[in-house]
Amino acid sequence: MAEKISDIGEFGLIARIDAVIQREGVGSDQVTVGIGDDTASFTPRAGYEVLVTCDAMVENRHFLSGSISPFDLGRRAMVQNISDIGAMGGRPVYALVSLGLRGEIPVSEIEDLYRGFISELNPFDACIVGGNITGTTGPLFIDITLIGEVEQGRAMRRSGATAGDVILVTGYPGQSCAGLQLLLNASDRTSLQDHPLVKGYNTPSHRAQLGAAIGKTARATAMIDTSDGFLGDLGHICETSRVGAEVMDEKIPISDDLLDVAGELGKDPKEFFLGDSDDYELIITCRPENAQLFRSLAADHGVPITEVGRITPLPGIFLVRADGTRERLRSISWDHFR
Amino acid sequence: MAEKISDIGEFGLIARIDAVIQREGVGSDQVTVGIGDDTASFTPRAGYEVLVTCDAMVENRHFLSGSISPFDLGRRAMVQNISDIGAMGGRPVYALVSLGLRGEIPVSEIEDLYRGFISELNPFDACIVGGNITGTTGPLFIDITLIGEVEQGRAMRRSGATAGDVILVTGYPGQSCAGLQLLLNASDRTSLQDHPLVKGYNTPSHRAQLGAAIGKTARATAMIDTSDGFLGDLGHICETSRVGAEVMDEKIPISDDLLDVAGELGKDPKEFFLGDSDDYELIITCRPENAQLFRSLAADHGVPITEVGRITPLPGIFLVRADGTRERLRSISWDHFR
Repeated sequence: MAEKISDIGEFGLIARIDAVIQREGVGSDQVTVGIGDDTASFTPRAGYEVLVTCDAMVENRHFLSGSISPFDLGRRAMVQNISDIGAMGGRPVYALVSLGLRGEIPVSEIEDLYRGFISELNPFDACIVGGNITGTTGPLFIDITLIGEVEQGRAMRRSGATAGDVILVTGYPGQSCAGLQLLLNASDRTSLQDHPLVKGYNTPSHRAQLGAAIGKTARATAMIDTSDGFLGDLGHICETSRVGAEVMDEKIPISDDLLDVAGELGKDPKEFFLGDSDDYELIITCRPENAQLFRSLAADHGVPITEVGRITPLPGIFLVRADGTRERLRSISWDHFR
Repeated sequence: MAEKISDIGEFGLIARIDAVIQREGVGSDQVTVGIGDDTASFTPRAGYEVLVTCDAMVENRHFLSGSISPFDLGRRAMVQNISDIGAMGGRPVYALVSLGLRGEIPVSEIEDLYRGFISELNPFDACIVGGNITGTTGPLFIDITLIGEVEQGRAMRRSGATAGDVILVTGYPGQSCAGLQLLLNASDRTSLQDHPLVKGYNTPSHRAQLGAAIGKTARATAMIDTSDGFLGDLGHICETSRVGAEVMDEKIPISDDLLDVAGELGKDPKEFFLGDSDDYELIITCRPENAQLFRSLAADHGVPITEVGRITPLPGIFLVRADGTRERLRSISWDHFR
């Protein structure tokens, strides 16, 4: 029988987690009080702003238990937060992990969950400095608070887009949602684990290194990640910037994989691109003369990037077809309560 | 019918929460990006360390739904975190609130929950800068990350106690647990709402202002709050400081209310003092010559304080009776999984 959390208790579990962090994580000499205390403390770097974000994941709502490994679940939960810091042009530095767990969960799964967190933090020399563990009788939850830093005055906003700016997007938003649909429609989920779009759903990438590089140039007017879907997040930029946008139908980037899967599922691949999807790509707006700078930065990072449209002075986001016809697009972001 | 979360959806709820925060909370000119973005950012004060803590509360585990108002629940969740910052000698500055909610919850209850958070933050000019809201089918959860600040090098630890130090404790730990027992044993919980110990459970106080004042003196050797119970937290000090302790039986502070209720419940009031109880009092250790300084500081803050024992060089915590007999005490801290 696998050792369960209830076999070793809360303090036993904390000791095991601490051992994984000490052995496999990186340390920081800026941390003055780390994991094990009720409160962590660190010395912020002079000349930097502190960024802070949090995102929770709930079992069977944000992830399908049984179709993702604990290691990948840890990665995915951390990527989601790293992406938010990266979209501000920042670098993650410290994480707090708050878990709601059931006693029957094997201890090794929690250790693997932390290995997943750590594998995403280590490339940034970022570390877990604290958190909280509680029992729950309901669905498991993972709530991460990620602290980042960005040079003073260099934090990217979603509110700076102006009419005439071009709209760039990295990668292929929509792939993750198509991967999820594949899983939901499958009779045998395990056979799908290696499908590129299922991997895109279970172990998405973030673009935080590119985000930080873009932030440093101070040439982007707005930036956001696509965690609410392309249309939802372009909508956030337009709303806070008080502008509108035109998206060119024929420029929408659709990967061959997405094209295939959309065909299999009998759906329009552009619906996946526009709609809600857990990809962590970046939307960037900038003056047209700076687009080439970002294209070459993205190439340096090995990240595909596509110019998909323009910011307009009047509100509303429109799809413009090759024949010049326009269709107003409405955001269909996921709502937890509707 | 009361308006429910499912009536207005996630983004409707966020707008309502934002309105409460804007109207009733305080602002900060250090916050460069506040609520509404995926990530908040702030400029840390030069010469200060940043403190960060998080604590989650789960329905029917950390609070009894139906026997606490949403406003009081908000206060209690925030107090728990403020207490952790205060025990480091720090001052809370920013909060992130992560909620797991069910759609059938009335919107007004969530607004009241935030009023509770705000009422505890406002005295510190601290503000809510972000968070996350998700749906859940299981028990509601409230997970708060609280960020504080403390002058560089002035953060209080639990690891500095040395043999010969006196042990001071504020207030009357154990009252909250007795209040909870009253509620659990009652046939009619509503009639107990005004009982002082039930109020102690539902709306505990923190000692963060006193904690900050103690931190400033740089004369305490260790400090911790009693959120794991007096014995559990004195145990944390002893373990990390690699020392032991003697607690004088006749010095244990028991309030008249606790004496009465323990009698009613047929229990020894000292068990409440020593055991697990959600009071947010402080345990402070210091050299004997500094005890008077802390007694007068506590008096300035209107907080009762009692010298209850001494730190010893050898490990183990002992209860010492008036007749000189000694009993080894074993921590019976709450374990979520046992």
